Amino acid sequence: MSGNLRIDLDRLMGRIFRLGEIGALPDGGVKRLALSDEDKAGRDVVSGWMQDLGLKISIDRIGNVWGIREGADDLSPVMIGSHIDSVATGGLYDGVLGVLAGLEVVETLNEAGVQTRHPLGVGFFTNEEGARFPPDMMGSGVQQCALSLDEMLAVVGIDGKNVAAELERIGYAGDVEPGTLHPACFLEIHVEQGPVLEREAIEIGAVTGVQGIFWSEFVVSGVSNHAGTTPMQLRHDAGIVATRIAAEARAIADDLGPPQVATVGVIEFSPGLVNVIPESAQLTVDLRNTDEAVPQGAQRRLAEAAEGFAAAEGCGLKTRKLARFAPVEFDPAMVDLIADSTETLGYSVTRMPSGAGHDAQMFAPNCPTAMVFVPSKDGLSHNVNEYTAPEEIRAGVDVLLQVALARAQMLENSGETACPEA
Amino acid sequence: MSGNLRIDLDRLMGRIFRLGEIGALPDGGVKRLALSDEDKAGRDVVSGWMQDLGLKISIDRIGNVWGIREGADDLSPVMIGSHIDSVATGGLYDGVLGVLAGLEVVETLNEAGVQTRHPLGVGFFTNEEGARFPPDMMGSGVQQCALSLDEMLAVVGIDGKNVAAELERIGYAGDVEPGTLHPACFLEIHVEQGPVLEREAIEIGAVTGVQGIFWSEFVVSGVSNHAGTTPMQLRHDAGIVATRIAAEARAIADDLGPPQVATVGVIEFSPGLVNVIPESAQLTVDLRNTDEAVPQGAQRRLAEAAEGFAAAEGCGLKTRKLARFAPVEFDPAMVDLIADSTETLGYSVTRMPSGAGHDAQMFAPNCPTAMVFVPSKDGLSHNVNEYTAPEEIRAGVDVLLQVALARAQMLENSGETACPEA
Repeated sequence: MSGNLRIDLDRLMGRIFRLGEIGALPDGGVKRLALSDEDKAGRDVVSGWMQDLGLKISIDRIGNVWGIREGADDLSPVMIGSHIDSVATGGLYDGVLGVLAGLEVVETLNEAGVQTRHPLGVGFFTNEEGARFPPDMMGSGVQQCALSLDEMLAVVGIDGKNVAAELERIGYAGDVEPGTLHPACFLEIHVEQGPVLEREAIEIGAVTGVQGIFWSEFVVSGVSNHAGTTPMQLRHDAGIVATRIAAEARAIADDLGPPQVATVGVIEFSPGLVNVIPESAQLTVDLRNTDEAVPQGAQRRLAEAAEGFAAAEGCGLKTRKLARFAPVEFDPAMVDLIADSTETLGYSVTRMPSGAGHDAQMFAPNCPTAMVFVPSKDGLSHNVNEYTAPEEIRAGVDVLLQVALARAQMLENSGETACPEA
Repeated sequence: MSGNLRIDLDRLMGRIFRLGEIGALPDGGVKRLALSDEDKAGRDVVSGWMQDLGLKISIDRIGNVWGIREGADDLSPVMIGSHIDSVATGGLYDGVLGVLAGLEVVETLNEAGVQTRHPLGVGFFTNEEGARFPPDMMGSGVQQCALSLDEMLAVVGIDGKNVAAELERIGYAGDVEPGTLHPACFLEIHVEQGPVLEREAIEIGAVTGVQGIFWSEFVVSGVSNHAGTTPMQLRHDAGIVATRIAAEARAIADDLGPPQVATVGVIEFSPGLVNVIPESAQLTVDLRNTDEAVPQGAQRRLAEAAEGFAAAEGCGLKTRKLARFAPVEFDPAMVDLIADSTETLGYSVTRMPSGAGHDAQMFAPNCPTAMVFVPSKDGLSHNVNEYTAPEEIRAGVDVLLQVALARAQMLENSGETACPEA
């Protein structure tokens, strides 16, 4: 029975550490910015592993790379994928785990002589981080036709170089047209990048979707005046309006409860002097929720409250939408399958949304998609101290293996010799 | 009767505009930083006027200048004074009005042939603004022994030059020891620098005292984390604690009512990114009140609330006192005299505290002291657009004249010839 197949943790960890040497930073972690020399070196290593495992490799015009393990039937592949680019001070696991776990699934099946009805694919997608070239999730976005290939090839990065030229330079400007890969389903295992699993001592997160993001900026204009000589009732204090908006954003998240979150990361007063009433103030509010309707209501409540605060203080108010991404809902059957497989393997599981964006969300509109989360120590991510323990990785990748096998439909008469007890 | 004496508004305005030409800025207003070339030129002009009016001039070691009009008896002088230095973008009236009004009182008495029992003095005090050399009210502070002469002479300014050297350079390092001038009382007329008189359409403010100032800085330390992946209940958001402290400062001022004011002029989040929960946040709170006990209670309430907000969010908190000046209470009999004289002259009057510091507060502990406020258009001050209408100035200086005369005790048989109707 496929249920008895298990991954080889040492082999997987060996690949993770080997890839972590490429672009390694002095204090741990990696810098492997998209389409850099380090990214090229990482791509070469992973492509080499794909070849060693007998995968048939394709490279598309935006530099996405995938390898296909043939299936018994002429079906679309079950895909496993993520990314190997990093932010400037990235950890060893973000993205890398999702790609190398896919290779580990393939090698486990190869060793066991398992044949599946569907082909099984493993891919890494160009520039998931967006740390060198905006936007993030570029490769998967182009692959799934959410972003324009031509526009993305023309994107200029933080160092003035463009995507097309850098793809050519590192030898990853492939000739496959994006959009030609139509997976039967898409699976991604990723570190949580948050504190929930660790805090609740749960081994696996069955990810139900990706939060929608609403970023807005409020600019309040008041009247600068002397902090001593201006009575409270005669003030038009832009600062107090901004702090009230910030407090309201928090109150909204508290009132709505999980999964609603609200963050005020930026607040600035001008002129910014101890004894001068602020003439202007600005702040940003980051609202996220997995439900599309809820944060729209939250956004509306915040906008109305902000108008009220400004009017009460006799201040002007300008509101600007900085970003808006609709939430993504993963396939419920896939989420159930992850949760069920986890329990069958004897691990604990919770259903949870992802607060960060992932390549999987680009696939979600086009094929059944879901993600497996494993814990992040202290919730750290985009940080050289990012860490997930090997046993936590084992649990996650064994779950991935079982889910991939279930979706790829292992042939009854294949590979059973490797599992004598079945 | 002295009640019939009136100042010559045109003469006074002429002097104000003449002094306003020294250090004039292209868009109006002046830059006459303490002990600069412009300050020296202004001092020379005002000293010249003092001489023309027959005043006996003294210059002390911190550069304060005063001129005495003799009295009939061997009594201490009734002093009128203020300053002629300005901030970098100052107006024509701040300080200047108080000095030139004194000269106008003297000239009015001279013309009328009035003799007073007390001598009458007019002074200008070095570096009231503190814009070039800290602290402000330096000359009056040294004169009244609230500041150390030696320490003040050693103060280094924003341009690296020190007070002693600059006093020598401009020729105003006098030889009179500070503290040798003991006024019978001290009077200062000044523009309000706030919006109250204009807003309430009242001509004269009888200033009851100067607000005490409590400046504190709060530094909140939290944990930086991802705005999407960190649930609200697991956050240690330094930013929300800072905004709650700011809101509490405002609530305290609102609860206590006038004359309590509270201002948050500075707030900063770090790292200051839209999608990152602030790791640290700092803000300043400026609390002012004329009553010493009230703002101490306010400060205590704020500190306790801040501790509570930090604890609730699991954040650290450090509080630092940046400045603390006790409130100054002016002499009630002098305040009454100003209010009564104003009403006798047919002007409207309100008793009000000063939110800003003034030379008069340095004299208040040592002799009966009070101030006359005239309106500031739009409450503007330390601004090239600072403005008080000539008729408003007339009202204030006529009040000053009457109060000075009352305190200096005009001799019954003096000067009556100038007032035939008396």
